Amino acid sequence: MKRLRVAIQGERGSFSEEAATKLLGPQTSVLPCATFAAAFSLVRGRRADRCLVPIENTLAGSVHENYDLLLEHGFWVEAEVNLRIRHMLIARRGVALRNIKKAHSHPVALAQCRKFFARHPKIEPLTAYDTAGSVKMIVEQGSTDAAAVAGRAAAAAYGARIVARDIEDDRENFTRFLLISRAARQRPDANKTSIVFTTKNVPGALFRCLATFALRDINLTKIESRPWRGRPWEYLFYLDFLGRPEATPGRQALSHLAELTSFLRVLGCYPRSRLR
Amino acid sequence: MKRLRVAIQGERGSFSEEAATKLLGPQTSVLPCATFAAAFSLVRGRRADRCLVPIENTLAGSVHENYDLLLEHGFWVEAEVNLRIRHMLIARRGVALRNIKKAHSHPVALAQCRKFFARHPKIEPLTAYDTAGSVKMIVEQGSTDAAAVAGRAAAAAYGARIVARDIEDDRENFTRFLLISRAARQRPDANKTSIVFTTKNVPGALFRCLATFALRDINLTKIESRPWRGRPWEYLFYLDFLGRPEATPGRQALSHLAELTSFLRVLGCYPRSRLR
Repeated sequence: MKRLRVAIQGERGSFSEEAATKLLGPQTSVLPCATFAAAFSLVRGRRADRCLVPIENTLAGSVHENYDLLLEHGFWVEAEVNLRIRHMLIARRGVALRNIKKAHSHPVALAQCRKFFARHPKIEPLTAYDTAGSVKMIVEQGSTDAAAVAGRAAAAAYGARIVARDIEDDRENFTRFLLISRAARQRPDANKTSIVFTTKNVPGALFRCLATFALRDINLTKIESRPWRGRPWEYLFYLDFLGRPEATPGRQALSHLAELTSFLRVLGCYPRSRLR
Repeated sequence: MKRLRVAIQGERGSFSEEAATKLLGPQTSVLPCATFAAAFSLVRGRRADRCLVPIENTLAGSVHENYDLLLEHGFWVEAEVNLRIRHMLIARRGVALRNIKKAHSHPVALAQCRKFFARHPKIEPLTAYDTAGSVKMIVEQGSTDAAAVAGRAAAAAYGARIVARDIEDDRENFTRFLLISRAARQRPDANKTSIVFTTKNVPGALFRCLATFALRDINLTKIESRPWRGRPWEYLFYLDFLGRPEATPGRQALSHLAELTSFLRVLGCYPRSRLR
């Protein structure tokens, strides 16, 4: 049986790889890409079967770039998975915590470990492009006074050592990843739908759009607005609801919503993941 | 007359300083801070009279950290100003475009100039903490092959030269800044109110909250949700409406909204800025 090829952004050992393993098992063939756009392009060019990208973090908010790419390519959300983000301080084997003077990582990861750096003022946080890529770098450079902040999968991927465990300030730090495919494939147990729409520019427009769900007792699990690129001060709305786009009452709600919106697209329908 | 002391994040010559000058005139005394938190702290400690911080960009979305800080300190939004973000390639005097091999800037600024870097593949974009700070750095280092991407105020601030003008991909790039003070000071011409709330966790909760405005024909200029820190998969809603919190019909809408929310705060009331 052919192994599923899944494109991710980031190096081997990234949180995206952790999420791929959690959702699809260790047999998945993960294809690391430099950017989210490159991961989508591999799917577009059929060099990957799927891509798995972060869409929302409980501290940082949505990853708008991936919403944009999903819309641009017209791909389909096939599954979701939630991953708890646990940051580790990782160094080469033989390097102890007391030797470490620098810690490289993505600025968001560094910002999520402020208390650790406050307790260890001798360690200077330094920004890099990537969490797992920082581990790769310190291993390749043979650093004896540098570490990286990344997930535990990165230590395993590069034969490095976890020097300090769970150094994140906030344990309520989860990232939701979406598994995305070229064609619409709806699993039989799919029970959650993601859509995007723009309201007509009239007072009460969003209120009326939400009425299409509220009047049918449909539960929303997310609603988020974001600026519409090229249309300053207008917004796109991303909404997730519990239900399916082709079954009652989701179908009626979407039909009603189409009357009220200037743009509406169903992004996918998939089984709701456990929250933790 | 005492000059108003306004704390901003970023070095002299930053977009925040451009915004301060646009809103308050060139006589303002601008106090540069390393972080947004530091700018708020100067106001808290009465070493600054106000802070001016970006809250929303039409391409990148909201600056959630500043919403968090506004809530945490309980400060008041006194004014807003919209600034078009124009990126310049800036180098030391005497350095020509053909000599430039590196361009330092904040990653968001670099990402907004992708087409320029595609047309100039010999110039390598390099990430730095700050736009204006990158100009300061290349001037101080005396670089003859490095440039920085920043606003035109940065060139003036450090005696550097604009080598290429308006290199941003998208001209529809605006940032909205808020002027924030310790105490509530509502100007007589204030006509726009910013609030934040959390809904009770019941189906249709947001729909009912929006009803309090829609049923009174109150115009919303923004609604945005963001993850609630420490409460995974729950959301805070930030909403701006045209009206005043103490005058009809805004007062009734807020009173009605209070019945439906578990948390509600008025963040400020201020004159609506021109969009451009």
